[in-house]
Amino acid sequence: MTDWCSINGRLMPSEIESAALLDDRGLAYGHGLFETILLRNGHLPLLNRHLQRICGDAATLGISIPREIPAQYIEQFCSILSENGISDGVIKLIATAGQGGRGYKSPSTSEPNFICRYSPLPDDLNSQCQQGIQVRCCQHRLPANAALAGVKHLNRLDQIIARNEWNSSDYAEGLMFSADDKLIEAVSANVFLRDVRGQWLTPDLKNAGITGVMRSLLLEELFPQMGIPVSIRDIDRRQLLNCETLFVCNSIRGIIPVTKIFSACGELQKTLPGDRQMRMLMTELVSNYPHYQ
Amino acid sequence: MTDWCSINGRLMPSEIESAALLDDRGLAYGHGLFETILLRNGHLPLLNRHLQRICGDAATLGISIPREIPAQYIEQFCSILSENGISDGVIKLIATAGQGGRGYKSPSTSEPNFICRYSPLPDDLNSQCQQGIQVRCCQHRLPANAALAGVKHLNRLDQIIARNEWNSSDYAEGLMFSADDKLIEAVSANVFLRDVRGQWLTPDLKNAGITGVMRSLLLEELFPQMGIPVSIRDIDRRQLLNCETLFVCNSIRGIIPVTKIFSACGELQKTLPGDRQMRMLMTELVSNYPHYQ
Repeated sequence: MTDWCSINGRLMPSEIESAALLDDRGLAYGHGLFETILLRNGHLPLLNRHLQRICGDAATLGISIPREIPAQYIEQFCSILSENGISDGVIKLIATAGQGGRGYKSPSTSEPNFICRYSPLPDDLNSQCQQGIQVRCCQHRLPANAALAGVKHLNRLDQIIARNEWNSSDYAEGLMFSADDKLIEAVSANVFLRDVRGQWLTPDLKNAGITGVMRSLLLEELFPQMGIPVSIRDIDRRQLLNCETLFVCNSIRGIIPVTKIFSACGELQKTLPGDRQMRMLMTELVSNYPHYQ
Repeated sequence: MTDWCSINGRLMPSEIESAALLDDRGLAYGHGLFETILLRNGHLPLLNRHLQRICGDAATLGISIPREIPAQYIEQFCSILSENGISDGVIKLIATAGQGGRGYKSPSTSEPNFICRYSPLPDDLNSQCQQGIQVRCCQHRLPANAALAGVKHLNRLDQIIARNEWNSSDYAEGLMFSADDKLIEAVSANVFLRDVRGQWLTPDLKNAGITGVMRSLLLEELFPQMGIPVSIRDIDRRQLLNCETLFVCNSIRGIIPVTKIFSACGELQKTLPGDRQMRMLMTELVSNYPHYQ
């Protein structure tokens, strides 16, 4: 068996359990949330932050997730992986609003469904961090939606449209903007930049974007520990193209330096040198969380 | 068996077939589309329009759906229902982008998955059309998203947030607006109104909303056949509250007159009398499509 997956803690989904997904609000409406969690040497270094995020954000979607339930399913799932000699990879946790895909109104009685899914680590995990990546600016704009901004929910057509704008492996990520040309995030990562005055900034996500676990860790732990100030604010395209340093980050890859920014047409817009403070943040991440080595 | 459902034409989904949904892009990202199709006396009166719409809109999501595939699955599904004495209800068709929920990029080789699901006709089908309904204005705004506007895709968190704004059965529908206070649609229906000058209007859906099958039928068949002019345009809240007549419409319920409009706080904002032209449109619908009786 290579396709490791569980539903509500059952590793080999029975007909009844997986058929229940046919009437699940996650499939019907994208009514649910997900986490992609790093598994390294048998450890899940940011599990607590993932659980805290998914349980907190679930309330925004009217879903009640007691933390111990996904915690238990993930623990069981990783034990089974471990027994089968798997100690590295990505655990995707999906939590849906459960049964009841016959009308938008949330049923008063439904229970969330939890899916755990394993995939191997990406091949380019280390090379991206060490060598940096090239990014392009996406044409598709993230819509403004204050009620859903920040939440890692299952409505991801905007990311799909943006990610399908390019086929070339020259670009590891795409930068996404709001309708009024503010930088929001990368397709699968948050962004931080250092402006011409040496000030570190990350986009305000009050109207769009996902407040990633690695972004929170940077804002709450790494920047403060290094004594480096960082601000959350609106960043327009001009500020992006004038920046001194840019990196993207997520909970699988950690901090990934950006070396070049291209336009949606493939025109080189900016070449970025290395940055001592960015390297210090990367070192601090590994120092605090050795599994990001 | 009361829970009629098929996946890719198989009525009793096997473990493998339904477990495949655990890795489906429909569940992972809402990467897919759906139709809710009226089954009346064993007939699907608007099936051609539904098939045309889902196959056409699928291209917007990078999904290729040859019309004959969902047509065949629906036909098979309805035959089985018929053999079991079921001739009335709602058939929900979900078409997803298929396998491959490990990254936003669409796989080059995946095949769409098709789910058919039966539910009984709503109890209030006839009473709503005959007596009309009360509606309320929703607080949640539909985000502007020109790339996805019109498409009946599986990213429906906005409708869920709006529909969960009220519990009272006094309101059968909620009216939804854009951020700049333009009327877009109802939570599960499109809207038409007759303004103070007697002109019929329906909202322009270029930036938000779903271009429903019943809306298209009204615009392309019923209004022209009656010789009644109708325009697609932006409608602001003032125009809504000054209107002479308002109805909502969808492919399950047909044309439903609105009798009263309430604010999000439950304040009565408008009482609407009947309208001869609206009754003529309802008669014309039944005359062309007797299953909407």
